[in-house]
Amino acid sequence: MPKILVIHGPNLGLLGKRQLDIYGETSLDQINGQLEDLAKERGVELEIFQSDHEGEIVQKIGSARDKVHAIVINPAAYTHTSVAIGDAISATEVPTVEVHLSNIYAREEFRHTSLIAPVAKGQVSGFGVDSYLLGLEAAIRLVKR
Amino acid sequence: MPKILVIHGPNLGLLGKRQLDIYGETSLDQINGQLEDLAKERGVELEIFQSDHEGEIVQKIGSARDKVHAIVINPAAYTHTSVAIGDAISATEVPTVEVHLSNIYAREEFRHTSLIAPVAKGQVSGFGVDSYLLGLEAAIRLVKR
Amino acid sequence: MPKILVIHGPNLGLLGKRQLDIYGETSLDQINGQLEDLAKERGVELEIFQSDHEGEIVQKIGSARDKVHAIVINPAAYTHTSVAIGDAISATEVPTVEVHLSNIYAREEFRHTSLIAPVAKGQVSGFGVDSYLLGLEAAIRLVKR
Amino acid sequence: MPKILVIHGPNLGLLGKRQLDIYGETSLDQINGQLEDLAKERGVELEIFQSDHEGEIVQKIGSARDKVHAIVINPAAYTHTSVAIGDAISATEVPTVEVHLSNIYAREEFRHTSLIAPVAKGQVSGFGVDSYLLGLEAAIRLVKR
Amino acid sequence: MPKILVIHGPNLGLLGKRQLDIYGETSLDQINGQLEDLAKERGVELEIFQSDHEGEIVQKIGSARDKVHAIVINPAAYTHTSVAIGDAISATEVPTVEVHLSNIYAREEFRHTSLIAPVAKGQVSGFGVDSYLLGLEAAIRLVKR
Amino acid sequence: MPKILVIHGPNLGLLGKRQLDIYGETSLDQINGQLEDLAKERGVELEIFQSDHEGEIVQKIGSARDKVHAIVINPAAYTHTSVAIGDAISATEVPTVEVHLSNIYAREEFRHTSLIAPVAKGQVSGFGVDSYLLGLEAAIRLVKR
Amino acid sequence: MPKILVIHGPNLGLLGKRQLDIYGETSLDQINGQLEDLAKERGVELEIFQSDHEGEIVQKIGSARDKVHAIVINPAAYTHTSVAIGDAISATEVPTVEVHLSNIYAREEFRHTSLIAPVAKGQVSGFGVDSYLLGLEAAIRLVKR
Amino acid sequence: MPKILVIHGPNLGLLGKRQLDIYGETSLDQINGQLEDLAKERGVELEIFQSDHEGEIVQKIGSARDKVHAIVINPAAYTHTSVAIGDAISATEVPTVEVHLSNIYAREEFRHTSLIAPVAKGQVSGFGVDSYLLGLEAAIRLVKR
Amino acid sequence: MPKILVIHGPNLGLLGKRQLDIYGETSLDQINGQLEDLAKERGVELEIFQSDHEGEIVQKIGSARDKVHAIVINPAAYTHTSVAIGDAISATEVPTVEVHLSNIYAREEFRHTSLIAPVAKGQVSGFGVDSYLLGLEAAIRLVKR
Amino acid sequence: MPKILVIHGPNLGLLGKRQLDIYGETSLDQINGQLEDLAKERGVELEIFQSDHEGEIVQKIGSARDKVHAIVINPAAYTHTSVAIGDAISATEVPTVEVHLSNIYAREEFRHTSLIAPVAKGQVSGFGVDSYLLGLEAAIRLVKR
Amino acid sequence: MPKILVIHGPNLGLLGKRQLDIYGETSLDQINGQLEDLAKERGVELEIFQSDHEGEIVQKIGSARDKVHAIVINPAAYTHTSVAIGDAISATEVPTVEVHLSNIYAREEFRHTSLIAPVAKGQVSGFGVDSYLLGLEAAIRLVKR
Amino acid sequence: MPKILVIHGPNLGLLGKRQLDIYGETSLDQINGQLEDLAKERGVELEIFQSDHEGEIVQKIGSARDKVHAIVINPAAYTHTSVAIGDAISATEVPTVEVHLSNIYAREEFRHTSLIAPVAKGQVSGFGVDSYLLGLEAAIRLVKR
Repeated sequence: MPKILVIHGPNLGLLGKRQLDIYGETSLDQINGQLEDLAKERGVELEIFQSDHEGEIVQKIGSARDKVHAIVINPAAYTHTSVAIGDAISATEVPTVEVHLSNIYAREEFRHTSLIAPVAKGQVSGFGVDSYLLGLEAAIRLVKR
Repeated sequence: MPKILVIHGPNLGLLGKRQLDIYGETSLDQINGQLEDLAKERGVELEIFQSDHEGEIVQKIGSARDKVHAIVINPAAYTHTSVAIGDAISATEVPTVEVHLSNIYAREEFRHTSLIAPVAKGQVSGFGVDSYLLGLEAAIRLVKR
Repeated sequence: MPKILVIHGPNLGLLGKRQLDIYGETSLDQINGQLEDLAKERGVELEIFQSDHEGEIVQKIGSARDKVHAIVINPAAYTHTSVAIGDAISATEVPTVEVHLSNIYAREEFRHTSLIAPVAKGQVSGFGVDSYLLGLEAAIRLVKR
Repeated sequence: MPKILVIHGPNLGLLGKRQLDIYGETSLDQINGQLEDLAKERGVELEIFQSDHEGEIVQKIGSARDKVHAIVINPAAYTHTSVAIGDAISATEVPTVEVHLSNIYAREEFRHTSLIAPVAKGQVSGFGVDSYLLGLEAAIRLVKR
Repeated sequence: MPKILVIHGPNLGLLGKRQLDIYGETSLDQINGQLEDLAKERGVELEIFQSDHEGEIVQKIGSARDKVHAIVINPAAYTHTSVAIGDAISATEVPTVEVHLSNIYAREEFRHTSLIAPVAKGQVSGFGVDSYLLGLEAAIRLVKR
Repeated sequence: MPKILVIHGPNLGLLGKRQLDIYGETSLDQINGQLEDLAKERGVELEIFQSDHEGEIVQKIGSARDKVHAIVINPAAYTHTSVAIGDAISATEVPTVEVHLSNIYAREEFRHTSLIAPVAKGQVSGFGVDSYLLGLEAAIRLVKR
Repeated sequence: MPKILVIHGPNLGLLGKRQLDIYGETSLDQINGQLEDLAKERGVELEIFQSDHEGEIVQKIGSARDKVHAIVINPAAYTHTSVAIGDAISATEVPTVEVHLSNIYAREEFRHTSLIAPVAKGQVSGFGVDSYLLGLEAAIRLVKR
Repeated sequence: MPKILVIHGPNLGLLGKRQLDIYGETSLDQINGQLEDLAKERGVELEIFQSDHEGEIVQKIGSARDKVHAIVINPAAYTHTSVAIGDAISATEVPTVEVHLSNIYAREEFRHTSLIAPVAKGQVSGFGVDSYLLGLEAAIRLVKR
Repeated sequence: MPKILVIHGPNLGLLGKRQLDIYGETSLDQINGQLEDLAKERGVELEIFQSDHEGEIVQKIGSARDKVHAIVINPAAYTHTSVAIGDAISATEVPTVEVHLSNIYAREEFRHTSLIAPVAKGQVSGFGVDSYLLGLEAAIRLVKR
Repeated sequence: MPKILVIHGPNLGLLGKRQLDIYGETSLDQINGQLEDLAKERGVELEIFQSDHEGEIVQKIGSARDKVHAIVINPAAYTHTSVAIGDAISATEVPTVEVHLSNIYAREEFRHTSLIAPVAKGQVSGFGVDSYLLGLEAAIRLVKR
Repeated sequence: MPKILVIHGPNLGLLGKRQLDIYGETSLDQINGQLEDLAKERGVELEIFQSDHEGEIVQKIGSARDKVHAIVINPAAYTHTSVAIGDAISATEVPTVEVHLSNIYAREEFRHTSLIAPVAKGQVSGFGVDSYLLGLEAAIRLVKR
Repeated sequence: MPKILVIHGPNLGLLGKRQLDIYGETSLDQINGQLEDLAKERGVELEIFQSDHEGEIVQKIGSARDKVHAIVINPAAYTHTSVAIGDAISATEVPTVEVHLSNIYAREEFRHTSLIAPVAKGQVSGFGVDSYLLGLEAAIRLVKR
């Protein structure tokens, strides 16, 4: 059964607790539940990982190579500052889908640049929880092809 | 039955005929067929429109207001140069999903800026034909909510 | 009797229908009515033209030379992106007044640059419908001098 | 009877004496005479003020609040360098019209940026003395509404 | 007999009628006459096309693929703003020569950037009508090789 | 008894009268009262000075040298435009504390740069009236050390 | 009794050991002692935390919400590079005071931009240990209001 | 006897009192004495003027037209920020020599740009008091030609 | 018989020996032969000059004035860095045609700017050896006119 | 015996496993072996440390002061984003050599800027494993001098 | 007797022969004659050197150290492009005066930056031949001090 | 026996004579002696060349192709301004090592960009004479591989 790694970046443990107008009312556990449901329905296995540490995310991706068939990542704040996560994705050579809850292009200017986008397969942003579900769907299709 | 307008921007009539390495081998007709299939399955009606003219796209969006519930648009080259299409989307107030076949962030630098993104609900890019299918799915969910 | 060409750029057909907080509640027909009233009072003839197409506006200006004595143009979104309309104004050598309903300098940064301003005689912006009326008045004075 | 404050910025006392090709042959006294005529005709009272001092202009605007209904200002060189005048306009909350004799957008690049425009109601530029007359007309309409 | 498509961009219908100091006194018809003479002499067939519409030029290039062996284009104002024409040239894969009547690098700064140049075979600029004749000659040589 | 000069820049005479959401409800007299109270408590003498004129502030600082032991300045709008005030602080060699009522880094971009900060000892911003009180406290400690 | 969280960023464990000319001779323990003294005097409880890890600081702030009434943070090098810490402060909605030992505006240019300042209540910089003491005082006043 | 106006800008009254390493040990009075000596020797009359106020310098230049044959100005800090002084020089049409005590191109970057230089006849900088003496000599030669 | 000076810039002595994919297989001698053939056919005399030294090229152009009727120059790397060659062309007032073997606008960004183009009559680039032949033809036409 | 600390930054644990075209086929263990051999030969002791965590690298450098005589660091992705590592090097005052396997100046533009270089003694880049060996040799010479 | 080296940069051999409106009608020989006259009068010896070669100017300056007491240089076009000449001036440690015939700040933007100014003692520009004479006078005073 | 060309750029003939704090006390002859010693020890032949002329360096590299196996170059000031030397290195296809005595990244900003680095194999900078020795060692290893 194909396996997909889902990575939640910094501050995402706070989802559903504050800034509800930007990020919505769903908690990270609820998002993970919906992702698990979709994975089961589509016959893939998930590994879910959250970290506030750039270094831990780099390590997780670096060790993913022969263990997962695709990665779905919401790099959150590290989207705009981490060359290291981008390098890890390049090095691991596992196809990666970048997702964002909010429309990063309609927010502050420093959020318009993604250091992850050039090394990702593609990007889904702006649809709240649906960004994750559509991103996972995109990853599954990449794996099944 | 909810109705969704799909807009294909300039040069997309050439899909599947050239630059197969960038845009894939599927023709615009085949993409439209797959979009129609998904629409039928999900119970929505589609209107599909292609134009190489910025002005025609502006008009199409401008007249869409009370006729469609959402828009899926691949603005192609106008992504990077058209303030007018962005203004039309703002004015029409119909929720709009931006899609791109290729990962525009991994191509030439002038393709990294989208004048459409700030006024769209969200964006799906980089998954080839799946960008259209996931984008339509995102639009359907926006409509059904 | 002197003749003045009034050009309304893209998306202006939607006036009075949406984004009332930015553009006001007056429709394009109502604006045109007020312009006609002023023209009659001041003894000039008007030709009024609206188009969402950059090319049609270019053509209209290009063919205006021996037919009108001045142009009043609200280039809307093309203000910021159209070298072609600027070139058409230069080429036609008919004195041209640029008008804007809103104060473009108090809006998004990309609206602060006008490619039309350097080739126009002058500019009136920020007064809603009065921008048109003052702009027409300015054009009449240019003609009468 | 409504009262409008007209402010002439630095170097404008020299009008009609030099650089006639840029600023025209009308002296500041003649402009003021024409403004007074228009004010009388339209039933408003004028207060006219000229200063070469940024600080005096700031003070004049700061003390204008309950005394005048609108301001017409030609900030001249301070257009491009004075945050303080812009702040004074914001603070005083009196509707303000910015005018320029010449088309500042067709001159040197450093004249293309106005620090006053974002806090003004609107702008009239490029019509010589008519910029003042149209600007005063705009202010009167703002007051009468 | 090889066939070459000559495309004249926006405002070029006005040639020989105004701005004679920049663009010269020759009309578009006269240029076309000289191009036809050269074509006859060199044994190639010409198709000549003028449009003020970005979209029409995009379509013309898009449909040129199996019909012509080379393109000579003077994109005029669209040189500096049209990603769509550049994309059409890339997509059609017909060798294309860019020509300009004036020396665009000795004019305003915004005319120094060409979005067409990176996808053209080469460029001839600054020689008035001779730019067209030299450009056509260049295209003929590309075809004959 | 050590003496400290407090300088209030342009528009600050309007405090407590308008833009209460940005600058708070306390008037300049009330701020001065609180500063005098703190000075008395801490055993220092104050000289308080307000001016809308860049030149007067320059003169005040220039003549402060042997008369005061520290300066507390809220340069307001001149923060972002006055090289002259910065030069005066450098020349006078009296230790200077820069204060701002509002958090200038959370406002318009042109307010993010201070020409005073590089020549000040330090800066306190964003705490409303407390910015002044903390700034005076900082100045007292500089003096007492 | 109100509680305030004090966060020391990377490299601050080295205080008082090197670069004494920039950061002063006081060690981190001594600073903490002075902060504790002030807290006791003013009737607030302190929690003090130092970390060289961006991720640990993010977590600390993220978990602070219902536990502390204000935060005093010296983000040190992360001031200029961490979007994640800024996002954590926004998300936690605890009022936050930014402090710096040195005057960051008088040092290298890359230290002039703070990614923390726009989401902080205010900033105190340049007064050495007094920056911490004044910053804590500012936080106490925010809490007591 | 030809007359030359010498203008000293802001903070120059402090010369010879502080920052001796940058500006030298000569006081403004001593400089004026040396200028008077040179003027006498060369048979010209001097008017000497110092002001910390941008507006006063603008007025002085504006009223200089028919009274002096040349101007020697050290605009000091206003060199880099005053469009108004530049405009006054343009308007007065009196040939103007710009002088600086220090080499402004070897100091902070914001001192490398002069808003006065483009409208001055020429510039002398970097030679301390000799900059004034050589600048006056340059002005005398302009007048005598 | 009219005389034309052909100048080959730095590194062009290596033509036909390396980087054949960029510059083609023709050697400099072969290019010169083709240029001589064209010159003979068109009745003009050539002087051909190659140098790797910026200074020698400056001297050559400086001494060309009364000796040649036009210049054809491939400035190679000096295109992007030499103000001196541009000044020499301006000073010599001999009409000059700039040529490039490769399409400089399709290569690295630093090759997109030409310091020669603003002072040349026109430019031919991207056609390999034909750039020289078309450039010489252009120069001949300039001479014959 | 002198001691040198060797630090490998993020993703370097993957060396020799992927992206062999950029980073070569040697694994990190093999590099460390060659470094140990050279150290032995030259009579110095090595401590070798690898981490994907910016914070751990900061701590390692911060605690190195009295324990090692020099540092050799390949900061990898943190080269371009970490002010904290640069600050740690400044604070620790141990002479530091920066090394890179690849030529960072021949890769993507964001890799051309190093935040470490200004505080390092020197840099060796582009020679694959030899960058490490030459860098260690450079460090040994710094120590022995 | 003190000795001063005068260096004329590229294209200056053409002085008095062309572009008389920019550079005046005096030839280089005439300028040198006037410089020799002044030198004799002031009791200094001159060595005069002209070169179109950056390298020769670098060598001349490099070998000047123990032979001359000051340098007067008009670097002409190399002003804006030569780091090497600036480095030579730094290395030779002979006080150097930069002169320009024209006011470089009133010409094209690329002439506003001087790479020589930061390492020169001072600069004289815009006075035609008098720039040289005043520059030599400045050098003599530097030597005599 | 393999042969390596060592090139010293402009001003390096002055080494050991001035600016000892930046470049050290070793003369160019002494450096060459140490390089010859290392070459002998490692069994390679050296050719050493110094020039202040960009053109001579271009020629030297251009003619090096079949004569040397590697190049070690210290381009000095030409590092930052010479496209021609970079082009020569590309054209000659001999592997090239760039060296710098000082750490160019810790000096003025214009020294942070190297036009040579993108076409060199690698770079060694900041170690004084050791930069040359390590750079020669790097070249020898490139040759021996």
